[in-house]
Amino acid sequence: MSYVISLRCKECGKDYPIEPRTLCDDDFGPVEVAYDYDRMKGAVTRESIEAGPRSLWRYKDLLPIEGEPKAGFKSGLTPFIKADRLAAELGVKELYIKDDSANYPSYSYKDRVVSVAITKAVEFGFDTVGCASTGNLAHSVAAHAAMAGVKAFVMVPHDLEEGKIVGTQVFGPKMIKIQGNYDDVNRLCSQIADKYNWAIVNVNLRPFYTEGAKTHGYEIAEQLGWKLPQHTVVPVAGGTILPKIHKAYRELVKLGLVADEGGHMHAAQAQGCSPVVEAIQNGWDDFKPQKPNTIAKSIAIGNPADGPYVIDAVRSTGGSAAMASDAEIIDAVKLLARTEGVFTEPAGGTTLACAIKLIQQGKLPSNESICVSITGNGLKTIESLTGQFDEAPVIAAKMSEFDEAVTKIEAEGKTPAGAA
Amino acid sequence: MSYVISLRCKECGKDYPIEPRTLCDDDFGPVEVAYDYDRMKGAVTRESIEAGPRSLWRYKDLLPIEGEPKAGFKSGLTPFIKADRLAAELGVKELYIKDDSANYPSYSYKDRVVSVAITKAVEFGFDTVGCASTGNLAHSVAAHAAMAGVKAFVMVPHDLEEGKIVGTQVFGPKMIKIQGNYDDVNRLCSQIADKYNWAIVNVNLRPFYTEGAKTHGYEIAEQLGWKLPQHTVVPVAGGTILPKIHKAYRELVKLGLVADEGGHMHAAQAQGCSPVVEAIQNGWDDFKPQKPNTIAKSIAIGNPADGPYVIDAVRSTGGSAAMASDAEIIDAVKLLARTEGVFTEPAGGTTLACAIKLIQQGKLPSNESICVSITGNGLKTIESLTGQFDEAPVIAAKMSEFDEAVTKIEAEGKTPAGAA
Repeated sequence: MSYVISLRCKECGKDYPIEPRTLCDDDFGPVEVAYDYDRMKGAVTRESIEAGPRSLWRYKDLLPIEGEPKAGFKSGLTPFIKADRLAAELGVKELYIKDDSANYPSYSYKDRVVSVAITKAVEFGFDTVGCASTGNLAHSVAAHAAMAGVKAFVMVPHDLEEGKIVGTQVFGPKMIKIQGNYDDVNRLCSQIADKYNWAIVNVNLRPFYTEGAKTHGYEIAEQLGWKLPQHTVVPVAGGTILPKIHKAYRELVKLGLVADEGGHMHAAQAQGCSPVVEAIQNGWDDFKPQKPNTIAKSIAIGNPADGPYVIDAVRSTGGSAAMASDAEIIDAVKLLARTEGVFTEPAGGTTLACAIKLIQQGKLPSNESICVSITGNGLKTIESLTGQFDEAPVIAAKMSEFDEAVTKIEAEGKTPAGAA
Repeated sequence: MSYVISLRCKECGKDYPIEPRTLCDDDFGPVEVAYDYDRMKGAVTRESIEAGPRSLWRYKDLLPIEGEPKAGFKSGLTPFIKADRLAAELGVKELYIKDDSANYPSYSYKDRVVSVAITKAVEFGFDTVGCASTGNLAHSVAAHAAMAGVKAFVMVPHDLEEGKIVGTQVFGPKMIKIQGNYDDVNRLCSQIADKYNWAIVNVNLRPFYTEGAKTHGYEIAEQLGWKLPQHTVVPVAGGTILPKIHKAYRELVKLGLVADEGGHMHAAQAQGCSPVVEAIQNGWDDFKPQKPNTIAKSIAIGNPADGPYVIDAVRSTGGSAAMASDAEIIDAVKLLARTEGVFTEPAGGTTLACAIKLIQQGKLPSNESICVSITGNGLKTIESLTGQFDEAPVIAAKMSEFDEAVTKIEAEGKTPAGAA
């Protein structure tokens, strides 16, 4: 028995039974899973969670599934790194990296939402799962479906990079390429879900899918020793993860598992696709859709479904927002790798680049704890770094040539920073 | 205080102090770390290990370091998967995948050996680490050096793929490309280690480096519930990991932590680089070096330093060996992804393909437990799968075209296997 009460409209509060449903019939507001926190109190404890499996399913009581998990047995509980070398470079005291680039099995935060969505799909009796995706989500759905032995259809824009296609096809899903951009794919998927009775994880299973993102927040709090970081910096694409980390933090406070301190939420977007950050910075109630043009393709959603809830979460927690240029994004990818050994995709570079700006602006005070959410792996976007490094010297296999090369490299290393 | 006694010659048994040393002065046999197992008994227990950190450092007492770890704090303890869907396809009862493609931070088994080598380098007082590598090792050394704040030089063959170069450069090591193949790079690195007083992890720190590979074996035994799988199938490149898994198993038996049952070691190589398998199959005492020509580049070492010890471990445990063609390797990569959601590089495909052959030959009996060691991640070798899948259909964003595409896909799915 779960603690789930209903699907509740985020706008009018109307309750619906637990079913594949996205919107409220009355006002077309999105529905969200509501829980009985009173009943949870005293039953869902630090101890009950710590006694659970070493995966995101340790937070099962806080997720909308009724039976046992059907997917994601090794997903979640990703590394939480005290980033002292990076902190020193940025001049802050207490900096953490929550590293979902090491998530399992597909190396992005999507493994969280897909674990929950596929489990729910099986509970609902669907025999086919699917998604609209430009990369990480298709990768994750295909991998989880393979692990769970469920049939998968992934729908992608026709111009997706060959590497991402092959890396998804290897798991054996059916793939259909749609002429158009992500929005076109997404629109078609709404119709597909209705007509085919498939579980399109980010469409008709969206309320369950998005709940999986809360586990990123639970883990941050648990791994920090059951407290909230004062500041959490999170990238914004469709707007799922930031409000769900906020929801996770509030749930932990409600249950008495963490003190009600900290939890300020900060939004990061690429300059070339920054509708939500623009709205926050300008004090608007809603965002204006944009046509994306940025190297951070996995977060380039110009019309984010949950954008308004990102704005709410940032405002209600006294957070802030920043955007980063492509050059700043690449610099941040390099900085994170060089200081902490974490290689992220441009989405992660965006989050760190924005955190750096917010530190410089004093919005992330240097003496308060800061957590930066890294959501994807750099191995999937190697091409974004092509031409970014000096050519390594090529020498014959002789000590004399090696000596010469080392002398030259060491001399270059001693020139003032920026001179190269 | 560690349990280390000495560096001991594997040939003549002569003891040397703990120092950067590779060979015995007398007979040029390789030296290996020797431990005081009598003193370990009763002190190193299942409980003491389980109380340790959730990383490979839970086996610290069995590793050659004196103080606290300096690298690899999140390395090891990779997923151990009961591969029931794959087992069903192969007609065996109990099949496990030990998945080092999810190792941290660089997604290969090399994170184990590098964690130990860099810690030892710091203990010895080296300020610069390095390696001779064709990919995974350079990647791991660069990432660990970044995490530990140690200077790194990586030496690679001049024709290494651009993706691997960029994926390593991002961590900020100094890189020098050597004209020649892996053997040429390796030879030069021996001279470099002497002249520069650097810790070249797989050269002058090799005895410590290789000990890290034991943790792959400890984890298999612990994750199986403190027992040995009856059969373990392991890829052979330079020949480090297979004998070290065997050493790990024997140590656990010696300490009374597992029963002395199972532990048969089986070697896997690509047909295009199979010197060790050839020697085992022909009953030779030593192997004949080969010129590699295979898609499994990360294990294509034609003159493996520790090849003789692979032969010994396989023979002494009553194991066997197999080689796989490039086509079989790719098929196995796909099979593993499709059934278990694990995407490995061709090296992992080699291991599974060889396991399949040994199952068919009855050398891996279908009613005995089998563990297949997956050592690297498919995201680093995406190009090996290019052209391996049917083109996905491209359609307009219209339901009518979608219906047509699905009908066609479903019809193809119903044709007899192999008809496509």
